[in-house]
Amino acid sequence: MSESTSDPEARDSANPPSDPPPPMRPTLSPTLETEPGLSAAELRDVWMILTPDERFDGFRLLPRGDAEEFFLELGARDHAELILGLPQQERRVWMRLLAPDDAADVLQAAPAEHREQLLGLLDERTRKEVSALLAYAEDEAGGLMNPRFARVRPDATVDEAIGYLRRQARGRLETIYYVYVLDEQQRLLGVVSFRELFSMDPSQRIRDFMHTDIITVQDDQHQEAVSRVFSQHGLAAVPVVDHDRRMKGIVTLDDIVDVVQEEATEDIQKVGGMEALGAPYLNVAFGSMLKKRAGWLSALLLGEMLTATAMTFFEDEIARAVVLALFVPLIISSGGNSGSQASTLVIRAMALEEVRLRDLWRVARRELGAGLALGTILGALGFLRIVVWQVLMPNTYGEHALLLAITVFASLLGVVTFGTLTGSLLPFALRRMGFDPASASAPFVATLVDVTGLVIYFSVASAVLHGTLL
Amino acid sequence: MSESTSDPEARDSANPPSDPPPPMRPTLSPTLETEPGLSAAELRDVWMILTPDERFDGFRLLPRGDAEEFFLELGARDHAELILGLPQQERRVWMRLLAPDDAADVLQAAPAEHREQLLGLLDERTRKEVSALLAYAEDEAGGLMNPRFARVRPDATVDEAIGYLRRQARGRLETIYYVYVLDEQQRLLGVVSFRELFSMDPSQRIRDFMHTDIITVQDDQHQEAVSRVFSQHGLAAVPVVDHDRRMKGIVTLDDIVDVVQEEATEDIQKVGGMEALGAPYLNVAFGSMLKKRAGWLSALLLGEMLTATAMTFFEDEIARAVVLALFVPLIISSGGNSGSQASTLVIRAMALEEVRLRDLWRVARRELGAGLALGTILGALGFLRIVVWQVLMPNTYGEHALLLAITVFASLLGVVTFGTLTGSLLPFALRRMGFDPASASAPFVATLVDVTGLVIYFSVASAVLHGTLL
Repeated sequence: MSESTSDPEARDSANPPSDPPPPMRPTLSPTLETEPGLSAAELRDVWMILTPDERFDGFRLLPRGDAEEFFLELGARDHAELILGLPQQERRVWMRLLAPDDAADVLQAAPAEHREQLLGLLDERTRKEVSALLAYAEDEAGGLMNPRFARVRPDATVDEAIGYLRRQARGRLETIYYVYVLDEQQRLLGVVSFRELFSMDPSQRIRDFMHTDIITVQDDQHQEAVSRVFSQHGLAAVPVVDHDRRMKGIVTLDDIVDVVQEEATEDIQKVGGMEALGAPYLNVAFGSMLKKRAGWLSALLLGEMLTATAMTFFEDEIARAVVLALFVPLIISSGGNSGSQASTLVIRAMALEEVRLRDLWRVARRELGAGLALGTILGALGFLRIVVWQVLMPNTYGEHALLLAITVFASLLGVVTFGTLTGSLLPFALRRMGFDPASASAPFVATLVDVTGLVIYFSVASAVLHGTLL
Repeated sequence: MSESTSDPEARDSANPPSDPPPPMRPTLSPTLETEPGLSAAELRDVWMILTPDERFDGFRLLPRGDAEEFFLELGARDHAELILGLPQQERRVWMRLLAPDDAADVLQAAPAEHREQLLGLLDERTRKEVSALLAYAEDEAGGLMNPRFARVRPDATVDEAIGYLRRQARGRLETIYYVYVLDEQQRLLGVVSFRELFSMDPSQRIRDFMHTDIITVQDDQHQEAVSRVFSQHGLAAVPVVDHDRRMKGIVTLDDIVDVVQEEATEDIQKVGGMEALGAPYLNVAFGSMLKKRAGWLSALLLGEMLTATAMTFFEDEIARAVVLALFVPLIISSGGNSGSQASTLVIRAMALEEVRLRDLWRVARRELGAGLALGTILGALGFLRIVVWQVLMPNTYGEHALLLAITVFASLLGVVTFGTLTGSLLPFALRRMGFDPASASAPFVATLVDVTGLVIYFSVASAVLHGTLL
């Protein structure tokens, strides 16, 4: 891959429009380029592992043009940190480099006491746009959208529209995949794709070929639902409207990529048995990370204490046949493993909407089959293990080794089937109760299955070994 | 959200260019709209739970225009299934609706014996493009890219370029975020964004304002690396070049959204302890799903058999103090839970490139701290549990309950610290050895930690309880 320090879109937004005061952009002298300090590419590479001070220093050493491009690639957290690290008089140009939706994100990432001041750095029009955006939650369509989009009147001709868009583009337009047709009240009437506009007869009126059946999202819709609209329809941008169908902005695909990553990270972390961190691993303060992990682990430990209680009931059996205790970890972990496999599958399928609540019985049937099959396979392996050991090293398991092998086989069959079924149905139960199905984490399922696994194991043992070992 | 059956981009591609024979597109009569059968929105809703036959029937009952839009929203697997379900003479129009990259995906999804015939349905130009695409693996940049992009010569003026693009758009252009400047040998010289082209003086030459420091990807680069280029630079499209810098196509953001989802699904499924399914849960044949799940579960069971071996070494201790056996599940599962938490965190952070190989020591220090803290918390809970039980129900754990409580505390501290450290370092070890770090699944870590957990527990017990219970 040949990678360089600039990309057209970033340079694009760095090229300021003519109306607001343009940020300084000195042409780079060759000497500046060879100054000591990291290049933008090098800085990007080590960014995650630098302390805030090191980041700031590295950033300040970049040549101005590179610094702007590098800056525009960063996220809101980094923006806020860098801008607040600068002296007062330098903050303005950097804030004004940002598109309104990015500026709003910076305000949200900055400590509350700095917000007013940062907002004051923007030009008046952007300030109004940003204030409007801040009224939305970060994870709703309104919090994702860009309030600047290409708009035309329905009665314009193609040629008029293209001319008008050329003037808008010179102004502050971010993206022009689609051109939106609005009435005087800013209500959305129709849409034409840029490609269509280009291929139409110049004298035709927009009204005559615009599409009026438009896919829109509501400004207060959750970002996960918005991302599903994108993936279902394969769009590059979706208009955001309020409840009166007034158009407020557009959400574009690049915002959605971040949403998809974010939601997947949340799910993976929940599946791993913890609260979602909500920030990069190395950036999260140790204390807050600990809190998110300790909560779940403690809850799981409390649940797991039931195993000690369950074992107490079988204390006599263990005393009489200590050999039974040897297989406790094997049996219960197999239940946990098969359960976390099944729950993970269903959680992901639900997140991708491949499986919905009404598929409960279909999934249950399938997983019952899978559980029985997997249980038979694992049971057979467990059976063989005991028989082979007994042949190779007689007396490892005493005279009743075959009965013990049968016990292990039947227990594994029961535990794995139960684990698979529980793991696959728990996400349904959680969703039905209004919780996030991803909370049916691998460790949660394992804990749930452990207690039942013990009961199954010792019950099977009592039945099979009665009159011999027990 | 107001959703309707049409979106401009889909309609866009459904509007056939004039050169190849256009697909029939009868205007919809109102009576057709009220025919029995599901609407496109209803069909979309139930699609996942229908059998192939039901899907086909539902699709055939859609009014033609709706059917085209619905068709374009589907994935390659569904395309192949629907097209091959149609009589020979109807297949052509549907194949020709597809962009070259989508047509190539359909060929890859179709059974080998139908590929030649399907390829023959395309017009000659598309057939050539598709054949070229098929040379790439599905998960490389070349397999993702669209070979149709907007191109101009460096010496064109802005006005000439816009005029030329208007003609190209009328032809077969899919996306026009960027316009690429190529020389006679199709080598990439520069790029201008559409917005720039629009805002420039009409008489300026492209050469004079095009960007020459362009971010590109190699045609044989893996899709995960490609998606990182997008997320690092916030681009809408990236040009794909071969090793001679000849431009082959563009990868656009909408392809990347799918890549991101796909890679996250793979990771989540691996974290859950199985091979990645590679297809939607309900679409995977039962047998092949079973194979992907049974393999890992069997391997884990074989590993877990070491616990039985380890327990054999402590059989005497258990016989003397059966009470020790009661806490085995509690102790080992706490190690497994803390380990799967840590490994999941690191796996995801690695996938997002928040953590790299060289961060090993930083992560190790952090996780050692986390392990000690978590171990202390869980150990304290375990200690309290035994003491409280002993006070409420004297004689549950005999006269040495306090010593037992100390044993449990120290074991949990050791096991959780060990589990956390193992879980966080295993992904590093796997990556260093060239494996996917996501294979450090929750169940894998749990199994690894179980054996060690037993050794820690019984060693601590021997030390603390020597001379009393043991």
